[in-house]
Amino acid sequence: MSSALACLRPHGLRMQATSLAALVTNDPARASDFALRVGPLYANFARQYYDREAWSALQALAAETDLPGAMRRLFDGEPVNTTEGRPALHAALRSDLGVGDTARQAHGQARAARQRMARLVQELAESNVTDIVSVGIGGSDLGPRLVVDALAATNARFRVHFLSNVDGHAVQKTLSGLDPTRTAAILISKSFGTQETLLNGEVVRHWLGNDERLYAVSANLERCAGFGIAEARTLPMWDWVGGRYSLWSAVGFPIALAIGMDRFETLLAGAAQMDAHALQAPAHANLPMWHALTAVWNRNALDARTQAVLPYDERLRLLPAYLQQLVMESLGKRVQCDGSSVAFDTVPVWWGGAGTDVQHSFFQALHQGTDVVPADFIGICRPDHDRVGLHAALMANLLAQTEALANGQDKADPHRVYPGNRPSTLLLVDRLDPQGLGMLIALYEHSVYLQAVLWGINAFDQFGVELGKQLAGGVLAALQDEADVSDPVTAAVLAQLRRT
Amino acid sequence: MSSALACLRPHGLRMQATSLAALVTNDPARASDFALRVGPLYANFARQYYDREAWSALQALAAETDLPGAMRRLFDGEPVNTTEGRPALHAALRSDLGVGDTARQAHGQARAARQRMARLVQELAESNVTDIVSVGIGGSDLGPRLVVDALAATNARFRVHFLSNVDGHAVQKTLSGLDPTRTAAILISKSFGTQETLLNGEVVRHWLGNDERLYAVSANLERCAGFGIAEARTLPMWDWVGGRYSLWSAVGFPIALAIGMDRFETLLAGAAQMDAHALQAPAHANLPMWHALTAVWNRNALDARTQAVLPYDERLRLLPAYLQQLVMESLGKRVQCDGSSVAFDTVPVWWGGAGTDVQHSFFQALHQGTDVVPADFIGICRPDHDRVGLHAALMANLLAQTEALANGQDKADPHRVYPGNRPSTLLLVDRLDPQGLGMLIALYEHSVYLQAVLWGINAFDQFGVELGKQLAGGVLAALQDEADVSDPVTAAVLAQLRRT
Repeated sequence: MSSALACLRPHGLRMQATSLAALVTNDPARASDFALRVGPLYANFARQYYDREAWSALQALAAETDLPGAMRRLFDGEPVNTTEGRPALHAALRSDLGVGDTARQAHGQARAARQRMARLVQELAESNVTDIVSVGIGGSDLGPRLVVDALAATNARFRVHFLSNVDGHAVQKTLSGLDPTRTAAILISKSFGTQETLLNGEVVRHWLGNDERLYAVSANLERCAGFGIAEARTLPMWDWVGGRYSLWSAVGFPIALAIGMDRFETLLAGAAQMDAHALQAPAHANLPMWHALTAVWNRNALDARTQAVLPYDERLRLLPAYLQQLVMESLGKRVQCDGSSVAFDTVPVWWGGAGTDVQHSFFQALHQGTDVVPADFIGICRPDHDRVGLHAALMANLLAQTEALANGQDKADPHRVYPGNRPSTLLLVDRLDPQGLGMLIALYEHSVYLQAVLWGINAFDQFGVELGKQLAGGVLAALQDEADVSDPVTAAVLAQLRRT
Repeated sequence: MSSALACLRPHGLRMQATSLAALVTNDPARASDFALRVGPLYANFARQYYDREAWSALQALAAETDLPGAMRRLFDGEPVNTTEGRPALHAALRSDLGVGDTARQAHGQARAARQRMARLVQELAESNVTDIVSVGIGGSDLGPRLVVDALAATNARFRVHFLSNVDGHAVQKTLSGLDPTRTAAILISKSFGTQETLLNGEVVRHWLGNDERLYAVSANLERCAGFGIAEARTLPMWDWVGGRYSLWSAVGFPIALAIGMDRFETLLAGAAQMDAHALQAPAHANLPMWHALTAVWNRNALDARTQAVLPYDERLRLLPAYLQQLVMESLGKRVQCDGSSVAFDTVPVWWGGAGTDVQHSFFQALHQGTDVVPADFIGICRPDHDRVGLHAALMANLLAQTEALANGQDKADPHRVYPGNRPSTLLLVDRLDPQGLGMLIALYEHSVYLQAVLWGINAFDQFGVELGKQLAGGVLAALQDEADVSDPVTAAVLAQLRRT
């Protein structure tokens, strides 16, 4: 594994002898040969900093690590979550492509849950409820929040609000202006043991004053009942779906309320379209594979330190935060599935923001900083408004920035030199409708899994979040009871907190 | 310069022989010796990965690069913006500490502008206007947006909305639900030539239908008049304030409307308190110097690739985006003031998000990823709500995370090992009031300037944002007139855009 990755390095070093601008100029077919279309989604990799020889090496790596076989194992429900001995069947939430009982059963459970969810949406639509408060955090929050922010109409049947942080200011902001007699709340927690969600859930329950408008999404029915939420208002989760891959399940209940059940189904259909492509397209024409290989190339051959996500559409402003979780929680690992330490860098920091805003913020560093930051630029071809001039300006900026980053500019004044050779991928979606957004998110999900396969790590566990939770228990006791803590710095800071 | 920085590297290598946990445990005085208090702001650097010897080397670097003299030059209005031959007098917007005519005149101009601003706030308060739309981008947006989000009460006299992106969806979202007869708009642009602000400004002007409720903040009165905004409703900017340092000027007009003129003045007083400390405290007890030296240590001695900002308060959720601009636009340079290329890394990527949300998102990678990410954890001691249990949970998580990152944990199962040695700074503010927030922002401003001094670069220009703007003009023409572009990739993508 690591030896195959090590083979990329000489290709990376070779690139120093050529410029990205020269690669594009000297190879007229590159602009189209390095592009792919899957339905409404177009991707162009011609401004990635690899030549055709390096690209062949990446294809060889795909074959050597059997990426097509890995996709098959994912869909068929094999225990790809090796450390926990479980499948990761998020694709079965929207596709029926898996072979075998495990995948088929999961798909059936998902359909049944969706039918129950549709009935609850219908019941709420027939009630006097106008506002929904979704209480969840991390994997139970960022997905629904992204999709609702991107797709909900301002005149939708329900206004959906999200409460995640265990912070009274967030509670205040979320509930202020809402009428408790016309609000329903959904508590989302796979384990139903998440500290933040239970604390905020208690506050919201008390504020509502009526448990009849309290819903839950969880894999732990017993705890839901213990909290006082009837089974009739509880939707299921399963251990074969990770939180960060779960917006397609009942965790998407807030989405279905915000955009309607039909459009929620179209979101899933978009993801299913990407599923079929990811499973069936040959490696050289497979968009998630191309995307994953490019990520590994930038990280391990070119030593990229971070990866930017730059949606040029206000409706996708939460995409960078969503992908931060999807990618960094999945791939932020330093131990391979076999227990050995990796001998190379795995996931870089993923970060970003919406263009053109960010052009006036951190783009200075992208153009003239010392670090090269590969970027995914995402544009929407047809907007859902009729201000043609604004949209043309937005798209012109997107294209100009990718060109400026790649080609740079020479000048006599060293302060005005742009070094160029800064790679980017360009993703265009015909429209930001449920289908297009579903495809886009599923593209990243599959790319993340394939990056994990290339690195030999497990994309589906998250042992790294346990220690902090565990220590927080002791610190909380110390804060509340003036008990002692052993760490000298924690003790010193606790003294400061008590001082005020 | 670069030789002084090179001296840090052996100290960085030496750290590999010791753990951060051992540094803390073996040196009982460290937890307090590596802490500083400036009024309501407490900072603890004991969990940064340097020993006392390295710290002495950093202090020697501070002396060698004359950081105290550099602070003096900033305040006195010397042309610290070397490439443009101008002073950078943002401190004069709130402090009267600069010696000489330049600084005194700037301070006087700032006071006069503030008096005019107070009158406009008063006039609007006496009108029927309930909502304000602030149109600006980058330095004319992120500062006011941060402060308004952090400090505005839900029952304030005005609701203030921000429109930055040149995207019809943003326009739609901002204006929907507002009554044009009860709304005033402020166009903020130093040059009054910013494409996004002029395009959005035209849309808002048309929607308002009444130029009497249109205000401007700009250094270019002529262009404001040309746009149709009377001088009586135009507030000044000056070439001696950079956009990203300008929230203390009339660019803060939306802040004054949202929180009231008195609290705006208190925000400035908080910044002034940090100004006095930054200018007068000796280097070894100077918080901005300590912060800047730590940043350079992490970057150049320990090779840190990014820097995280983690406010544990929902009201500071925009701080990471604000600092991204402040830091990366200021320090994203690869050429020193004298025109030579740097021989070391300058600014890393600054990124982050609000805790505890981010614990459920990217913290997996912070704890177990291959990259070490230094982090600033920011907590507020006393919340402005009475949900004691929520606040205790929030603070307990903050402290537990810094401890877990630093100390790590050994386990037989390699997947459950936490390597530790992951450094952080802890910043506590007594309350998130205008004074505390003003101090916090000014701390980062001064730290950024001092990092620039340590790296020998200019924190106050931004030539790197020009090329993209320039190319966008050509692409826009091609988009609108079907004209040709020369770059083959841009041409291929344009064809895709036209296809839909």
